Amino acid sequence: MPAFGDAAARVVPVDDAAAAAAAAHQDRLTKPPGSLGRLEEAGIRLAAVAGRCPPPVPAPATVAVFAGDHGVLEEGVSPWPQEVTAQMVANFAAGGAAVNVLAGHVGARVVVVDVGVASELPPVPGLLRCKVRAGTANLADGPAMAVDEARQALDVGAGVAAELVAGGTRCLITGDMGIGNTTPSAALLAALTGRAPETVTGRGTGIDDSRWTHKVAVVAGAIARVVGRPPLEVLAAVGGLEIAALAGFVVGGAAAKVPVLLDGVIADAAALVAAALVPDCVGYCFAGHRSVEPGSAVALDHLGLRPLLDLDLRLGEGTGACLALPVLQASARVLAEMATFDSASISERTDDD
Amino acid sequence: MPAFGDAAARVVPVDDAAAAAAAAHQDRLTKPPGSLGRLEEAGIRLAAVAGRCPPPVPAPATVAVFAGDHGVLEEGVSPWPQEVTAQMVANFAAGGAAVNVLAGHVGARVVVVDVGVASELPPVPGLLRCKVRAGTANLADGPAMAVDEARQALDVGAGVAAELVAGGTRCLITGDMGIGNTTPSAALLAALTGRAPETVTGRGTGIDDSRWTHKVAVVAGAIARVVGRPPLEVLAAVGGLEIAALAGFVVGGAAAKVPVLLDGVIADAAALVAAALVPDCVGYCFAGHRSVEPGSAVALDHLGLRPLLDLDLRLGEGTGACLALPVLQASARVLAEMATFDSASISERTDDD
Repeated sequence: MPAFGDAAARVVPVDDAAAAAAAAHQDRLTKPPGSLGRLEEAGIRLAAVAGRCPPPVPAPATVAVFAGDHGVLEEGVSPWPQEVTAQMVANFAAGGAAVNVLAGHVGARVVVVDVGVASELPPVPGLLRCKVRAGTANLADGPAMAVDEARQALDVGAGVAAELVAGGTRCLITGDMGIGNTTPSAALLAALTGRAPETVTGRGTGIDDSRWTHKVAVVAGAIARVVGRPPLEVLAAVGGLEIAALAGFVVGGAAAKVPVLLDGVIADAAALVAAALVPDCVGYCFAGHRSVEPGSAVALDHLGLRPLLDLDLRLGEGTGACLALPVLQASARVLAEMATFDSASISERTDDD
Repeated sequence: MPAFGDAAARVVPVDDAAAAAAAAHQDRLTKPPGSLGRLEEAGIRLAAVAGRCPPPVPAPATVAVFAGDHGVLEEGVSPWPQEVTAQMVANFAAGGAAVNVLAGHVGARVVVVDVGVASELPPVPGLLRCKVRAGTANLADGPAMAVDEARQALDVGAGVAAELVAGGTRCLITGDMGIGNTTPSAALLAALTGRAPETVTGRGTGIDDSRWTHKVAVVAGAIARVVGRPPLEVLAAVGGLEIAALAGFVVGGAAAKVPVLLDGVIADAAALVAAALVPDCVGYCFAGHRSVEPGSAVALDHLGLRPLLDLDLRLGEGTGACLALPVLQASARVLAEMATFDSASISERTDDD
């Protein structure tokens, strides 16, 4: 069975009983109830993912950076030339990019997956060569890819997730590289949430007003062609290859009952696709940070996820999710390691019942 | 010379030239300029603290948890009994508190400093016994402590900072424990920022409307007695012993040119005191997180600091600052370790001049 179909069939809802046990345990720890805020929420959700309390610390972690090119770059939606995608893949492999530094800092491994870079890439250590096609077609002119190509990209992502978990990874971190990929992600966000293109379309790595206006028009034109179509067809029509692969990666992580830590707006769009295809996978997703891109908050609201960090990042690659990893891991350690009021002989508050 | 006076005399402004060099270097790294957001800002500020670019990674780090009791507890400003301060000190020493778990997770050491716990504490490893007095007097009735006691507490904090740095610590993290200490911190915040007591007084670890109204009245009464007085007298009149020690700790860190990572509202109040006494020390301070307590944002705005994290924490102890440590450290590693456009042979954007 193809990797995505297999994964989709194995996704089950997260464990509400484990979440309830974790919530009850939080209130016995030596701190005022609720005083660890979002950290308590994250720990409870990790318990739901793992099906037990305390949940295991989500480590080791691996960042999978899915790379692809975008035909829509012809429309002038990015100030960067397409060759930068391949150059950055080489930078990831050489260890010089931001995600390498941040992943190394938090103890995560980086793998790079070519799912759709336009040029032929030489084999280098740490690069998985899974190219479905050499970049998408221009979504302003017609479908970005065929439905079968979207399926193949989903398989790549689900397959990478399965292999990483089989190799011992216990936390999957999403990464992306693709010059121009905030345009397909905005189109997916608009199509899957029903929000207006101008509210979910941002300036990516930096464009002026006139380019932004054209980018919004491109998004509006693309989504007009997919109204009412099923999510797989929407994905093929407007999505990038790396976004499709990320959607498969999310579902693959959920199938393996491993937390999936989402990076920025590209991952958020991919998670929307994953949720449209396999709704129960959202329970396994954790939002690493709120990207500066306006679509990020829209997608996370739609998914019911609250980002752990808000550091004005707009880089992608997995950088924000890497920075959030220690917070996510800390939330599990709190449940496992803190003393309880009983064990530490600490007085409870005087106005409790 | 007493530790605080010695430290205050040695504080110099941070190095603007190193900051400018770091800002210029950020724009040569393989990422769109500014795309690492707050991480870039933190790295630039670390360079200013260290006086060089790239700045050293702020490690190893130590959390100093200053503990004290508060006579104002008589006013019913907290639902927790005073004995919890001493019980939590024992919990810190035993390694069971939230700050122990979070410090351990991020590789920081914890030391606990008794600067004013009401009861006599037995000697235990990791506890520094520097008691100035056994808890403050009730600030609702008169000065919380004598001016000379405030000076002694400042010395304790500055001395601990100096000893930790002498022992190899390269990042100081503020921690606090003191049942009732959001009342003196609110009074300091109101007195030193000029804001109304009701805008800076929160619910601490959890009080109802009537207790909150009384807490606001206590704060208002206390600050009415110190209008126009110099900061040291304000500190003595309304401040806690652990808050005074934290102010000394901040100045001690600045004197040693080591970054000081502030935890929540108690540390923010202490940093306001430190800034009032030694204005240049603010350049060495980094705000770890925005506490749920309303005074935290007020203090940080006043100091011109932006918190790294916003996780709805309201525990204190140093917990939020510990969670922020990996972010702060990552900001230094980005400057030291990322490839540049030149070194990685990556094309620049096509619309640049």
